[in-house]
Parts: sequence; structure tokens; C-alpha cells
Amino acid sequence: MEKDKLKFDKKILALRAQIDEIDWQILSLLAQRQDQVEKVVKLKKKHNIPVYHPAREEDLISKLRVQAGKANLDPDFMEDLYRVILKQSRVKQIDQMQGKGVRPDTRILIIGGDGQMGQFFASLFHKSGYEVRILEKKDWNKAKQLCENIDLALICVPIEKTCDIIEEIAPFLGPNTILADLTSIKARPLEKMLDAHPGPVTGLHPLFGPDSGSLDKQIVIVTPGRDSDRCQWLVDQMTLWGAVIVPCSAKEHDEIMEIVQALRHFATFSFGQFLYEKNARIERTLEFSSPIYRLELGMVGRLFAQDASLYSEIIFATKQRRQLLKDYIASLNNHLEMLEANDKNLFIEKFDHIAQWFGPFSEQAMRESTFLINKLIERF
Amino acid sequence: MEKDKLKFDKKILALRAQIDEIDWQILSLLAQRQDQVEKVVKLKKKHNIPVYHPAREEDLISKLRVQAGKANLDPDFMEDLYRVILKQSRVKQIDQMQGKGVRPDTRILIIGGDGQMGQFFASLFHKSGYEVRILEKKDWNKAKQLCENIDLALICVPIEKTCDIIEEIAPFLGPNTILADLTSIKARPLEKMLDAHPGPVTGLHPLFGPDSGSLDKQIVIVTPGRDSDRCQWLVDQMTLWGAVIVPCSAKEHDEIMEIVQALRHFATFSFGQFLYEKNARIERTLEFSSPIYRLELGMVGRLFAQDASLYSEIIFATKQRRQLLKDYIASLNNHLEMLEANDKNLFIEKFDHIAQWFGPFSEQAMRESTFLINKLIERF
Repeated sequence: MEKDKLKFDKKILALRAQIDEIDWQILSLLAQRQDQVEKVVKLKKKHNIPVYHPAREEDLISKLRVQAGKANLDPDFMEDLYRVILKQSRVKQIDQMQGKGVRPDTRILIIGGDGQMGQFFASLFHKSGYEVRILEKKDWNKAKQLCENIDLALICVPIEKTCDIIEEIAPFLGPNTILADLTSIKARPLEKMLDAHPGPVTGLHPLFGPDSGSLDKQIVIVTPGRDSDRCQWLVDQMTLWGAVIVPCSAKEHDEIMEIVQALRHFATFSFGQFLYEKNARIERTLEFSSPIYRLELGMVGRLFAQDASLYSEIIFATKQRRQLLKDYIASLNNHLEMLEANDKNLFIEKFDHIAQWFGPFSEQAMRESTFLINKLIERF
Repeated sequence: MEKDKLKFDKKILALRAQIDEIDWQILSLLAQRQDQVEKVVKLKKKHNIPVYHPAREEDLISKLRVQAGKANLDPDFMEDLYRVILKQSRVKQIDQMQGKGVRPDTRILIIGGDGQMGQFFASLFHKSGYEVRILEKKDWNKAKQLCENIDLALICVPIEKTCDIIEEIAPFLGPNTILADLTSIKARPLEKMLDAHPGPVTGLHPLFGPDSGSLDKQIVIVTPGRDSDRCQWLVDQMTLWGAVIVPCSAKEHDEIMEIVQALRHFATFSFGQFLYEKNARIERTLEFSSPIYRLELGMVGRLFAQDASLYSEIIFATKQRRQLLKDYIASLNNHLEMLEANDKNLFIEKFDHIAQWFGPFSEQAMRESTFLINKLIERF
């Protein structure tokens, strides 16, 4: 038996050494691949060509899937793997391309440049060769001077200050200066900008936090105000940084964000509040957790790692929003009787109605979340 | 200019051809790697050694991170990549190992073998060389015969039927037969099994759906009943299939599941109900969606792709659960006044309290969910 064990150990060590050797070769090839990609980037940069090439990526994935099948490898596995490799390659490329500005030497004033989002955009513009000026709270006495000859004034202040700041800055702007804001509500600030400034105006809402590190594949909503043609370079610059641009009206934006931001964050907040009231043992529940619970609880925990005042601004932004949240609570109260009466049939009836209403989205959500759950299992 | 473009095209095509060549070499190496891993599995199978070797995996990752750094590759990228490779290798290994039974030729009766979960376990046991018998609703007239000489009776019926079925099957079991169930509540069924059957008893709760395909890294809760030693092979078999076993008392299990299942599913259900009431335009909101919204909405949609009666059983399982859900609604009602009064400061105060209570979990949740969000961006 002991001899058998020794023989096994020897064999398995030999096999593992071979696997290690293969891994080493893969690693060298990845390094070579990275070098080649860098050459592509340099070339693109020289010819001013955008870095992200979706068609080339999908082509490559399709080809590799076919080749994988022939080599007795699982095509899904090969695709997963190359999504990781291409993402890394894209991040590196965008990183190197950031030096490239659509309109370098343009002068940009960032109002609220001491906030996280302001700093994030200041750094992006700066890296791309723009002349970036910052106006912080303490700088209002030199506002006139800071606004001199600027091509873009970008407002990055908290929601509740946006409209006041627009009024204060507008008189200093030249008629050709673009006035833009990054606020997460759009109707009121856009109206205010159009009132206060006769020149080009555009509203922007970047759908990500300043901690995301890059604009790669991030969504930026654009709500046009006036002279869209003259604002186009700004949109092009975001695209070059990797963003996906979604244009829409300010009104529609705000309606959709009532659901996408206010309702969702309030529901998450309320759930966290209840766990706190019940003093639920988070750590212990996690030991019992399927990946999906871990994910859902993570979504709650995540909220509370962030800035309370940001969320208060989003949730309390308008009267309509507060009404929507009151409606939400009313809707929950409608379930009380069902719980009281232990009425499972009513639950099933309601459930089936909702399922029907969600339609094919449910199946899609199932697929997407299953994909993510597998990623979670892989990692932890 | 045209000539310049031609030169650029020629250069970039040459570089891409080189990258394609590198990709092809990587693919061949992955195929070689898969062959070597298959040899390891055959060897392990011959010597009856479990397939998953966490220490070996972490070692390998650490080594590769160091090597990556030396080769000017991002270590995080290398780790991401190898998590995908190792996961694939693990799935393949477990697949091949499933032929291996801890106690092959043992006779197993699955009661409720026509349900999805019953079918899933029947297929696992069958592949591992067990003699699997199925008892469906229509088979009760031959229950005595089906129970003859069985070593394990596994109950896989809906929650509300579990206790009745335990009473019905117990008289047919020999004194050495293990009686076990898979119900997602544990206290009442375990008590009932101990009352009805004098032999070995154990409660199991697999924390995953039958659609997950394998037990790889899935959690199975074990609530011991009687004669744990004699139930051990069953636990060992789950481990060999890749499951992570979490032992606990039936009482604690049920308390934790009030939060992990009932509250969570009810909150998700209520959110879905409200979206339905408001007729929210799901598809359009998704176009505006940051990956995190997509993920959160996906969690809601996912619920409604599943079986209404399963969730009704989970949510309405006990009186305590229904009380907890009523408390939850009451807690939401406490926010009404704050919304009415537009009291942002009270919101911030509550928020900060909850954040403090969540403690370091928030940061961890932030990290984990950011990792997943990046995966989502990669994919879609």
C-alpha cells in the first residue's frame, strides 16, 4: 500500500511538472501577445484611429470557438477565457490612448473639481492634452479670470447645488463656450442652463461612480440642449475614452431614473434598515449562503459603503420621486392581508401575473445572473 | 493620405496575423493542458483520491502571479485568466470522477423522484454506481417492495408534503436504513423523521436549484438527527461530488433561512409587483442601465422565471416567517413620515447607523460586487 502511494506521488508530480511547463509557455505567449497589441496601439495612435474594434473582437471569438471545437476544447470555456484576455488588452489600449485628445489644447473649466467625479474628469482631460482649470468653492473671487477663453464649462457639483451654480457661472461665459453638467437629474438643470446661457448647452449623466477607474464600456447619457453640433467633440471624446453614449430627452431621462435610481436605492436602503432592526447575523448567514444570496446581500452592503448624502440627493430629488416611494410602501401594505390570511394561492396568482408581465426578460435575467453566479463560484 | 492609409492597413494586418498565430499556439497549449489534466484524473480515480485540491490551486495562482509580474503582465489579469482555466479543469475532473461512488451498489430509494431535484440526485447516484429506485405518487401500492433492502430513503417532495410522506414511508423501512430529506425547512421534518423512524436519520438542504448542473462548490447544509456515523458515507459522497458541507442544528438553520430565503424572496417579489403596478418599461430602463442596475433588476427578473409554488412554500412555511414579513412591511411604513417631510437629514442619520452596523461587510461587498460588475461589462 505504501509502495502504491509512492508510485502515485511520483506519477502525479511528473504530470504536474508537465502542466507547470505548459502554464509557463502560455504565460510567455501572453506576454508576446501583449507586446504585439502595444504595437497595434502605437500604430492606431499615430493614425488617430479609435482603439476599440467590436467587430474584430467578435470575429476573433467566433474563430477561436471553431478552433476550440476542433481541438477538443469547450468553445464556451475558450470564449470565457478570451473575454478576459480581450478585456485586459482593451484596458491597456485605452490606457495608452488616453493621451489622445479629440481637440487637445481646448480650455476646460471644471466647476467642483475638488469632488471625486470632478477629479476623475479633470484627470482624463488632462491626460488627453486639454488645458484643465479647476474652480472650487474658495475660487469664486477669481471666477472671471478662470472663465477667460474657456471652450467648456463642466459643472460637477452635488444635485442640490447645481441650479444655483449654473446661475452664478453663466454670466462669466463667452457666447461660444459650451455649458454642460454631470448631474443625475436632467430636466431642471438643463432648463436652467438654457435660460442662463445663450451659447451651446448639453446635459450629461455618466452612469458610474468615480471609482470605476476608466470609461471603458460605461454608459453616458446625453440630453442635448442647444447647438448640438458644437458640442459633438465632447461626445466624441467620451467615445474615444471608451464610453457608450445614450442620447435621450431630459424628461424621459428623469422618468426612467425614478425607477433605475430612486426606487431601487430606496428599496435597498429599506432592506438594510430592516436587517439592522432585526440585528441579523450577516456573517453567519453568509456561511449558509448560496452564491446568489451572497450577491444579493452584497448589493445591499455595497450601498452602505457609499456616501449617504449622495443617496439622499438621489432619493429626495423631486416631489414625484418621493410620491413614487410612498406608492411603493402602499403597494407593500397591500400584501399584509395575504400574509395574515396565509393565502398561498393569492401569492401564486400575483406571482404568475408578474412573471407574465416580465415576459422574456425573466429568462434573460436567469441566463445573465447564472453566468455571474458561476463567476462568483469560480472566485470565492 | 490614401497611400498612408494603405500603409497603415498593411502594417496592422501583419500585426494581427502575428496575434492570431499567438492565439493559435495558446489554444494548442490549452488542449495539451487538458490532456495532462485528464491523465491526473485517471490516476486519482484509480487511487480513489478526491479531485479538488484547493491548496494546489492557490499555489499555482500565487506562482503565476509572481511569474506574470516578471513578464510585465498584470498579476490580476493572470489570476482572472487562471480562475477560468482552473474552473474548467475542475468541472471536467468532477465530470469524470462522478463515476466514482463512496459506497457503490448501495440501494437508494428516492421518494419524489419525478421532481427536478429528485431527478438531479437520482442521476448523480446512478452515475456513481448506486442502485437507484424511484417512488412517485402512483407507486405507493408497491412501496413495500421498493423499500426492500434499501440503505437510504431520500425524501425529495415539496415542503408542505414532507411530513406526511415521512409518516407514510417510515413503516416500510428497516432499522438500519438511513432516512433523509432535502426540504428547505429543517426543524419540523427532522423531528418527524426521528419520531417515525428508529434508525439513522439526517436532514439535508442543498442550497442550489436542480438547474446548476453539478455540485461543484455548492453548499449543502447537514442537520444531524441520529447515528451520524452511519450517515457519514452520504456526506462523503456529496463531498466527492464537489459540495461544501455546512453542519448546523435544525433550529439555527430555520432561523437563518427566515432571512436568507423568506425575507429576501418576499422583498424581491414585492419589488417586482410594484414594477408591474407602475408598468415600468423594463427594456428601456436597461438601455440606461449601469451594470449594477442590470444586475439588480436581473435578480428580480430571475425570481419570476422560477416556480411560483416553490416560492410560496418558502415564504409561507411557518407562522414566524409570516410575522417577520409583516414586521418588514411595518419597518417600511416607518419611512413614510420621512418622505412626507422631505427629511434628508433623517435619511442620512439612518443611513449612517446602518452603515456602521454593517461594518467591514460593506467594503467587502463593494469589492466583490465590483469584481462581478467588471465581469458583466466584459461579457455584455
